Amino acid sequence: MNASEFRRRGKEMVDYVANYMEGIEGRQVYPDVEPGYLRPLIPAAAPQEPDTFEDIINDVEKIIMPGVTHWHSPYFFAYFPTASSYPAMLADMLCGAIGCIGFSWGCCLGRGSNQPIRCVQSLGAGGSLEKGLAPACKPPVPPYLEAASPACTELETVMMDWLGKMLELPKAFLNEKAGEGGGVIQGSASEATLVALLAARTKVIHRLQAASPELTQAAIMEKLVAYSSDQAHSSVERAGLIGGVKLKAIPSDGNFAMRASALQEALERDKAAGLIPFFMVATLGTTTCCSFDNLLEVGPIWLITDYRHWQIPLGRRFRSLKMWFVFRMYGVKGLQAYIRKHVQLSHEFESLVRQDPRFEICVEVILGLVCFRLKGSNKVNEALLQRINSAKKIHLVPCHLRDKFVLRFAICSRTVESAHVQRAWEHIKELAADVLRAERE
Amino acid sequence: MNASEFRRRGKEMVDYVANYMEGIEGRQVYPDVEPGYLRPLIPAAAPQEPDTFEDIINDVEKIIMPGVTHWHSPYFFAYFPTASSYPAMLADMLCGAIGCIGFSWGCCLGRGSNQPIRCVQSLGAGGSLEKGLAPACKPPVPPYLEAASPACTELETVMMDWLGKMLELPKAFLNEKAGEGGGVIQGSASEATLVALLAARTKVIHRLQAASPELTQAAIMEKLVAYSSDQAHSSVERAGLIGGVKLKAIPSDGNFAMRASALQEALERDKAAGLIPFFMVATLGTTTCCSFDNLLEVGPIWLITDYRHWQIPLGRRFRSLKMWFVFRMYGVKGLQAYIRKHVQLSHEFESLVRQDPRFEICVEVILGLVCFRLKGSNKVNEALLQRINSAKKIHLVPCHLRDKFVLRFAICSRTVESAHVQRAWEHIKELAADVLRAERE
Repeated sequence: MNASEFRRRGKEMVDYVANYMEGIEGRQVYPDVEPGYLRPLIPAAAPQEPDTFEDIINDVEKIIMPGVTHWHSPYFFAYFPTASSYPAMLADMLCGAIGCIGFSWGCCLGRGSNQPIRCVQSLGAGGSLEKGLAPACKPPVPPYLEAASPACTELETVMMDWLGKMLELPKAFLNEKAGEGGGVIQGSASEATLVALLAARTKVIHRLQAASPELTQAAIMEKLVAYSSDQAHSSVERAGLIGGVKLKAIPSDGNFAMRASALQEALERDKAAGLIPFFMVATLGTTTCCSFDNLLEVGPIWLITDYRHWQIPLGRRFRSLKMWFVFRMYGVKGLQAYIRKHVQLSHEFESLVRQDPRFEICVEVILGLVCFRLKGSNKVNEALLQRINSAKKIHLVPCHLRDKFVLRFAICSRTVESAHVQRAWEHIKELAADVLRAERE
Repeated sequence: MNASEFRRRGKEMVDYVANYMEGIEGRQVYPDVEPGYLRPLIPAAAPQEPDTFEDIINDVEKIIMPGVTHWHSPYFFAYFPTASSYPAMLADMLCGAIGCIGFSWGCCLGRGSNQPIRCVQSLGAGGSLEKGLAPACKPPVPPYLEAASPACTELETVMMDWLGKMLELPKAFLNEKAGEGGGVIQGSASEATLVALLAARTKVIHRLQAASPELTQAAIMEKLVAYSSDQAHSSVERAGLIGGVKLKAIPSDGNFAMRASALQEALERDKAAGLIPFFMVATLGTTTCCSFDNLLEVGPIWLITDYRHWQIPLGRRFRSLKMWFVFRMYGVKGLQAYIRKHVQLSHEFESLVRQDPRFEICVEVILGLVCFRLKGSNKVNEALLQRINSAKKIHLVPCHLRDKFVLRFAICSRTVESAHVQRAWEHIKELAADVLRAERE
């Protein structure tokens, strides 16, 4: 494919994407396929000779789309919303075209030459490993070490600061000027948690070995213990497994929030047993029910503010372009309005549920998630969810809150409106009536 | 931005991308900017009100492009080639539009119901962690656990098999039918290495604890030792650091390859010292000089064939679409021709170098990399590289092979032709003459 064919096919693809987004409401949100549906539909091996673009795009509609759960349908109320916007798609096209890999860029990014900050990896192809801060790094670094992708690295640094400011993080989290913070875009929340845990592990091992050089890494790791709420996402537990350290779940309170007293109790018990607490994960918006650990309480018990930008891969795509496009084309106010609309829609759903005495709200609605259920047994709620997801008009996923089986209604789609929420509620009520009737019979 | 504006802007972006790719040869391959150049050029915080698309695309040319190292320029001979093609860009657009997150999909993907293979994560939002194979998983799994993105998960499985077959991997690596293998696309080589190491670590710990239940994980980890060639990429060392295990470098031979004798020697010495060898990384195409560890020799000493698909993040983008588009639109023969052309161009460069008695080839040319240098001191070669990268007509990076400072000429760009290689060589010869003249003076 040459540039002129790409011009043609690229524009066809833009139309395909726009048609898909415009027509997504008409597609069944949840697919009908059975596991293993796809393999028989495509050849067992790559073709020897090229296929045409027409063949492929036809197969998208014939083979791929029937197996897609449409995450951006306004009838998708499962999981949590995932980022999707036209500006992000435009930026992704540019990112793919530039196709650079960001890793090394100088030693003194925006700082005095005695304060190297981003010698993440002096490539020296296959050379020695110099990761993280490199205080021993001696500028000037030869130029061949420096410029894998300056714009890629620098835009990411600045976008992280834009984001930090939008979240009103304390200045210590920012990279700008004399800030000690800064960050990189992680590929996923799982990686972010893992990286933070590894940074804390490294720090505590270095500190303990500096004080007691006879201690081996293994002897220290055996005593390390990390904490999170019992409502934390499973990726936190997984980070502990990968990091080879204990991870303990702190019992959350009646609002599914981690509180100081429970954390303090665990800390004291573990210290008395000779363990070394080194890491705590507080969750703001749990996956189950969007509850918030009490950061104002647990924060003072724990200070986690000095870990550094760091990631598992050496290189990265020019992914900050997406943030740049999105932040600029929505503006802070546009993004605020977007989030507020989702919160408002979830409160609208909440009030519909509260008006129906057969249902109950299970936890305070804070952001775009409503946890609700039929008053009654888990069985009846399981039956209701089964009917909802079998009907495939809308899509929900459940959670367990303590012993209760609970339905989660998450406002996900960029295009979801009050009418979709109303229609979803009417549909749920009808199915609930069926379930309750079936139960009585 | 609505769908109709996206149609317009998307097509403009397609043209921008096509123009960029068509004109890339005219852009200086290596940027002129200094570290920190970007921050003063853009606001310190995200705009409150939206910017226009015109503003942003103008800034791309004004702010971003001056800081880009053009990895797909035919004058980029640094690092190694990175994947870039029009079909991949088209697929990426579709991937962004579908915007699904693949994680859970049934229990019995293409197998009997007593052989669950892909219960990677039974979400149960915030529920318990059930990763990897889940032999205890009891079908039927309630449908709400199943279909985060069937097509995304299934296409990835099949594309991994297509790739495995293209590489002629033994059947045990494949997922199809009764195969025990299969895999997932990892985000980067670093992650792939880490995941393999973690899988091996978990396996050996389980095995040793099954035999000796009194052994703690820490007691085992203290004795674990992994191996790679001293030419292995730094990400292998990093995987050892993250995994909390020793990683030893095996001295490579005169061709920079790991051989059985050196590995065997290390294994025996470490076993005698009470250590537990558990993991070995063989490199096929080292970053420094594209040397190949002798897999036929070291393989029989080591069997690593039974680790499983596994990744750090829980979810993944619909990234297999890119492989599907690329494999189909090039065909196996097209991809073979592509690789063979790169290899042929590197041999063309090699023969140019060999015709000039001032230069030497430092290691056998196998794929698309030529390691070469001026006969003489490291200093004169450092000076040559400095001149090359200061002139910014082409871009190279160096490596150290033992004590020698060596220039790496990697065939990278999809559009590189013989004429570019010839021109690059003329340019290098001119600069070499300057360097040698300056040395004599």
